[in-house]
Amino acid sequence: MNFLVIGGDAAGMSAASRAKRNMPEMNVTVLEKTHDVSYSACGMPYNIAVPEKAIEDLVVRQAQVFREKQGINLLTGHRVESIEPKEKRVAGVTYEGEKFEFPYDKLLIATGGSPIVPDLPGFDLPGVLVLKNLDHGRKIKAYMDEHPVKKAVIIGMGYIGLEMCEALRARAMEVAMVKPNLNFIPWMPDELSDEVQKEAAANGVALHMGHSVRKIERANSSLAVVCEDMTLEADMVIVAIGITPNNELAIKAGLETSVKKAIAVDRMLKTSDENIYAAGDCADAYHVVTGEKTWIPLALRANRAGWAVADNICGSQMELDGVAGTSVFKVFELEIARTGLTLKESKESGFDPADIVIKSRSRAHAHPGSTTIYVHLIGDIKTGRLLGAQMVGKEGVAHRISAAAVALHNKMTVERFSQTDFAYAPPFGPVWDPLLTAANQLLKKMP
Amino acid sequence: MNFLVIGGDAAGMSAASRAKRNMPEMNVTVLEKTHDVSYSACGMPYNIAVPEKAIEDLVVRQAQVFREKQGINLLTGHRVESIEPKEKRVAGVTYEGEKFEFPYDKLLIATGGSPIVPDLPGFDLPGVLVLKNLDHGRKIKAYMDEHPVKKAVIIGMGYIGLEMCEALRARAMEVAMVKPNLNFIPWMPDELSDEVQKEAAANGVALHMGHSVRKIERANSSLAVVCEDMTLEADMVIVAIGITPNNELAIKAGLETSVKKAIAVDRMLKTSDENIYAAGDCADAYHVVTGEKTWIPLALRANRAGWAVADNICGSQMELDGVAGTSVFKVFELEIARTGLTLKESKESGFDPADIVIKSRSRAHAHPGSTTIYVHLIGDIKTGRLLGAQMVGKEGVAHRISAAAVALHNKMTVERFSQTDFAYAPPFGPVWDPLLTAANQLLKKMP
Repeated sequence: MNFLVIGGDAAGMSAASRAKRNMPEMNVTVLEKTHDVSYSACGMPYNIAVPEKAIEDLVVRQAQVFREKQGINLLTGHRVESIEPKEKRVAGVTYEGEKFEFPYDKLLIATGGSPIVPDLPGFDLPGVLVLKNLDHGRKIKAYMDEHPVKKAVIIGMGYIGLEMCEALRARAMEVAMVKPNLNFIPWMPDELSDEVQKEAAANGVALHMGHSVRKIERANSSLAVVCEDMTLEADMVIVAIGITPNNELAIKAGLETSVKKAIAVDRMLKTSDENIYAAGDCADAYHVVTGEKTWIPLALRANRAGWAVADNICGSQMELDGVAGTSVFKVFELEIARTGLTLKESKESGFDPADIVIKSRSRAHAHPGSTTIYVHLIGDIKTGRLLGAQMVGKEGVAHRISAAAVALHNKMTVERFSQTDFAYAPPFGPVWDPLLTAANQLLKKMP
Repeated sequence: MNFLVIGGDAAGMSAASRAKRNMPEMNVTVLEKTHDVSYSACGMPYNIAVPEKAIEDLVVRQAQVFREKQGINLLTGHRVESIEPKEKRVAGVTYEGEKFEFPYDKLLIATGGSPIVPDLPGFDLPGVLVLKNLDHGRKIKAYMDEHPVKKAVIIGMGYIGLEMCEALRARAMEVAMVKPNLNFIPWMPDELSDEVQKEAAANGVALHMGHSVRKIERANSSLAVVCEDMTLEADMVIVAIGITPNNELAIKAGLETSVKKAIAVDRMLKTSDENIYAAGDCADAYHVVTGEKTWIPLALRANRAGWAVADNICGSQMELDGVAGTSVFKVFELEIARTGLTLKESKESGFDPADIVIKSRSRAHAHPGSTTIYVHLIGDIKTGRLLGAQMVGKEGVAHRISAAAVALHNKMTVERFSQTDFAYAPPFGPVWDPLLTAANQLLKKMP
C-alpha cells in the first residue's frame, strides 16, 4: 500500500510515523514544500524571546531520523500543485524546479494553515512579518539580528500576538499592539479581559484598540503603521490577525469544505473522497458541545488526528470525539485558558445560556502567595448542561481548564460537574476549587 | 423546625450556615465540644512552619459571625454524650460541667475524626503530640515555644506526617520519620514513591521504614522512640498514623456503621435513622468508581456533604454522586496527587486492572524549566474503564489530577479519556498532556 502525505508538520509526520509503526511494510511518502519538518510551532514566541537560541532548537525530530530510523520516504522541498482523485495521483514541483508525480492508495492532506495578510498597501514591505511556520520564525529572528529593531508594532491581539508581545518585551523592545475591535479579548467577559489588558499594560505594552490599520509605509529608516486616526512608528511589524486553512489543493480536487472553508472530514478524518483524509490546521472537526462542525486549529488535535488517520488506513475504525476548543496561553505572568463555547457562541448555537463570573483564590485561606483566579462559567438553562469555561490567573489556571474540558466531553450538567471530587490542599487552592465555586454560583441562575 | 448539629467544623458549620440561608426562620443550633469552630485544619502544617503566625489565623469565620450575622445558635464547650433517637433529643455536659439537653426535628452528626494513638507505653508523655483539630495545632506550637525542640520524630508517613516533616524542617529541626511498612508510599508504584522519598531525603529528613515502634521513653531531658532494633532520640514526637471516625455517639444511638466503622449514610447523607444525618470525617460515602461504600475523610467532601444535608432537610432531594478519592499534597518541592483506585484496590474491587507508569515533562520540548512528571494510570481490561490515576512532579500535578477525577465521575473508558481535549501551550506541558500520554500507553496493554 502507498500512503502519501502532503505536509510534514504535526499532523503529517504523526500520521506517517504511526502508519509505519502500525505496518512497517507500508510505503509511506511525505511531501513537504519547505525544508522543515516536525517542529514545535507553538514554541516560536518563546524561542524568539532568546536571541542566542537557534530556531532549530524547536525541531522535535530531524528529517534524517524519519528517513533512516523510521523508513519514511520524506521529501522536503516538494510542493504539491494538484491532486487527481480519479487517478489517485498527485503532481508538483520541487524547490529546484523539477516536476514530480506520486501515486497513492491513501492520501493525507496535512497542509496546515497560513497567516492572514490583509490586501492593503505596504504589508509586503521588508520588516513586515508573520508567524506560523518555522521559516517565519527564522525570518523574524534574522530580521532582528540584521536590523536595529527598537520599536515593534503587532497588528492583532489574538494569542499569537499576545505571546509575541511578551517575547519582544523580553528583548527590551518598545511594543505597541493595534486592532480595530474596541474589546481587548472580545470572547471573554470584561472582568477577565481587563485583567489580561492590565497585565500587558503593566509590562509596558502600548495597547491601541479601536484603530483600523489602513496601510504600512516606509518612514525615515523604518516603518509607519498608518491607521485612520493615528500613526505608529515601528522598526518591525508583526501581522498576527489570524490564520486560514490551506485548502487550495483540496478545493481544486473537488473536495468538500465547511466552516471557514476548512476541508470537511468525518469522525474518521475522511474527506468527501473515499481515499483522501485531511488532518491538522487545514481540516475541520466536530465540536463536542454542539455536535456541529467547527474549525479550531490547534496542535493537540493535529497530532491526534494524524494518528487516527494512520490507524484508519491500517484497518482500525478510529472515530474521534472531536474538539472542545480547549486552549491556554500565557501573557507575562498571567495564564489565560478556555474550553467549550463562549457566551456568544452559546447563543448562536441555539442554547439558552446562563453565565457567571466569580473571583476565587489560587491558594487556601491564610496560605501565603495566594493570587486571584477569575472564572467565567456558562451553562444551558434548558438542559442544565455545562457549555464552557474560561479562566484567568497567575497560577492554577492552565491545568484546571482541562477538568472542565473532560466534563464537556461527557456532556455533564453544571449540577453534576459541581459534585465532582477535585483535589484540594492549601498550597493549591481553596477547599472548593474555583471551578466548583463557579458551578455552585451558576446553579443559582439555572432554575 | 429545630435543626441540631453536633460538631462545629467543616461539615457542621457548612450545614448550619446553608440551612439558615435556605430557611432564615429555622432554629439552627450547633453544639461544639471545643471552643474552635470553622477553621482550616489542612492549613495547620503550613501554619506550624511559621513561629510568628497565630494558629487562630486558620479560623475561617469567627463564632460571633455565625451567631450575630447568621443567627445560628452556636454553643461551644458543649460536649454531647448521648443521642436519644426515639425522643429526638441529645444530652451532654458543658465545659463548665453543666448538663444540657436539646430536642431536634432533624439532627446532623458531624463529629469528625480523631487521630489514632497506639496503646503502647509512653504515648501519653508530654511532648508526644498528634495533629487533627485546631487545639492539637495550638499544643504543638505551644510545645515548640516552651521547649528547646531541636530533634523531632514523626511516627507514620502518611500525608499529614509528610506535610509535618516539611513544616518542622522549615523550623530548622532535625526530623526523623519511622514506620513499620518497608514501602515509603505503599499505595504508589516504586517509580513514583521513590521520587517522593528522594525529595524528603534530599531535604534532610531521616527516613526509617520497616521499624515498629514499641514504646516511647523519657531519655535525659527529652524522649526516646524505641523500636525493636533501634532507638531514635527526640525532643518532640508527632504521632501521625491515621485517623478514625468519631462514631461513639452514633453507635450508642444504634445507628448503622460501615467501612472502618464510619457512620453509614445514603446518597442524601441520611443515616439508618430517618431524622439523623451524618457528614464529614465521621461518615462514609459511595465511591464513584466502585459504587461501593468507602471512607475517605477529606475536606471537600465534608463541606459538600454539609451543604447537601442542609438542602435535604429544607426539602430538596440532593443526592451526592460520591467521592473519587482525589487528593493532593506537597512534600517540599514535589506535588503528589491521586484519584480513584490504586492497583491493589482495583484488584480487591473485582476489576481486572492493567496499569502503566510513564515519565513525561511539565513543559514543552525545548521550553526552559521543564521538569519530570510521573504518571501512574490504571484501567480495567474487562470494561475498558479508567480506574485511577496518580502523579508526582514539581509542577503541573495538583490540578491535572482533577481532570482524571472528572473522567472517573463519568465512568469514562481509557480510550475515550485519551481523546479528551486538554489544554496545551509550551510553558504548561507537552502537546500530549502527561495524562493523555499515559492513557495512550495504557491502551496498548488493554486489548
